[in-house]
Amino acid sequence: MAEDGWTECVRSLKGVILDMCGVLYDSGAGGGAPIEGSVEAVKRLKASDLQLRFCTNETQATREKFVAKLRRMGFEIDVSEVFSPAPAVVSILKQRGLRPHLLVHDDVLPEFDGVEKSDPSCVVIGDAADNFSYQNMNSAFHVLIGQEKPTLFSMGRGRYYKETDGLKLDVGAYMKALEYACDIEAEVVGKPAPMFFQSVLNDMGVQPQEVLMIGDDLVNDVGGAQQCGMKGLQVRTGKYRPSDERHPTVTADGYVDNLAAAVETILKHRG
Amino acid sequence: MAEDGWTECVRSLKGVILDMCGVLYDSGAGGGAPIEGSVEAVKRLKASDLQLRFCTNETQATREKFVAKLRRMGFEIDVSEVFSPAPAVVSILKQRGLRPHLLVHDDVLPEFDGVEKSDPSCVVIGDAADNFSYQNMNSAFHVLIGQEKPTLFSMGRGRYYKETDGLKLDVGAYMKALEYACDIEAEVVGKPAPMFFQSVLNDMGVQPQEVLMIGDDLVNDVGGAQQCGMKGLQVRTGKYRPSDERHPTVTADGYVDNLAAAVETILKHRG
Repeated sequence: MAEDGWTECVRSLKGVILDMCGVLYDSGAGGGAPIEGSVEAVKRLKASDLQLRFCTNETQATREKFVAKLRRMGFEIDVSEVFSPAPAVVSILKQRGLRPHLLVHDDVLPEFDGVEKSDPSCVVIGDAADNFSYQNMNSAFHVLIGQEKPTLFSMGRGRYYKETDGLKLDVGAYMKALEYACDIEAEVVGKPAPMFFQSVLNDMGVQPQEVLMIGDDLVNDVGGAQQCGMKGLQVRTGKYRPSDERHPTVTADGYVDNLAAAVETILKHRG
Repeated sequence: MAEDGWTECVRSLKGVILDMCGVLYDSGAGGGAPIEGSVEAVKRLKASDLQLRFCTNETQATREKFVAKLRRMGFEIDVSEVFSPAPAVVSILKQRGLRPHLLVHDDVLPEFDGVEKSDPSCVVIGDAADNFSYQNMNSAFHVLIGQEKPTLFSMGRGRYYKETDGLKLDVGAYMKALEYACDIEAEVVGKPAPMFFQSVLNDMGVQPQEVLMIGDDLVNDVGGAQQCGMKGLQVRTGKYRPSDERHPTVTADGYVDNLAAAVETILKHRG
């Protein structure tokens, strides 16, 4: 593995943030499968002096169910360590007194249990997968177009993700469809929104330059973290494509074959 | 009805192009319903010395079936007078030797009967309506993302249209979703593509400044025609919304309540 400039920052690191899908595991039928070496890599990070958080745009399940799935794969992860868009958007809805129409995956609905949803005043979309039917898209469109100033929250803005049986369209594509139909711009909650990364940094109690983000999504994980002042590392697993290494606007601080290789290098350079 | 500056050009007119859905009829369950006065208005134009063509982005049926539906509503229209995107895209596919993966409405499939579709080298999308499922969108996405230079043809780029039971998302929204997912720009076939309007003008054998386009879509009908040098009139039927009359970039040469009122004014000013 080539060791790039990013290894220089390792000695001053205080924390690591890990993306989940494509770094820890590949999602897919039967819940997906861990990526080789990732279970052990998380264990090694936890045993180190580094703070560790997980930051995901996963919106196909509640945090509780999602973490339970990862624990069944062997990962040592607690719900309190995981940051995902649904609790963040619930908090925004409550702050602003908004009532959402939800176009989301059935399994994430319980996150919105305590939220008033009658007479909707905004739309929240997540990675709804098969719920992205023409009928459901029209329902969301009708709520938006009926408002004087339509408000659309998108839980992430990813283009696509990798499941065990291939690439799948992510919420960002459907966000663009509704943005275009209504001539509006969505408010993104989740990566790469700076407010979302900042909430993780606040929880860790560290400065951005002391933190390394590791993800498979060059724009949303790496670029998003870099815009907040963190270092960003891309793994060559998950949705990684070789063209990412010559992207016109985002250059990672380093590229590594997988999480296991990244952790090996981090721990070696901390001595 | 206010008579704007557009009436000044009426004496020099040689032809009129009519949009169909939202001008002649509102689509919907049972095939839709004619807009009041439109059947008679078409009859009056046909009896005048003006050339008349119909220009639609309709892709939910073959031209033959579509015209048959309008004739059942009482409109005197021949297939040869109607310009729609499917025959235009078939012609482009043959010229460029491309094999399409089709994400279209079942009822427009016969237009593509003579086109080789195995081992697809591009994607063609139309107003697929309920065929815009998550699964079908992923299939189209897979064809595109598997190509070095993905080619996407979109039959129109409308945001939404009006059916008798409300507004429906149009192909443009789904074009944007695939454009974003693949980081590409679609080639639009149909209104407002200049090449599409030009093919109608060629068939009429007239100059653009001698032609008036009448439509309910400010950007794709009116703006598209204006960019080709024609005059553009917006009717306040179909997808018309009052905010169209203060659009930031497109201003129609005139706004009229409906096609009947437009034809009344045209014929009156020709004396």
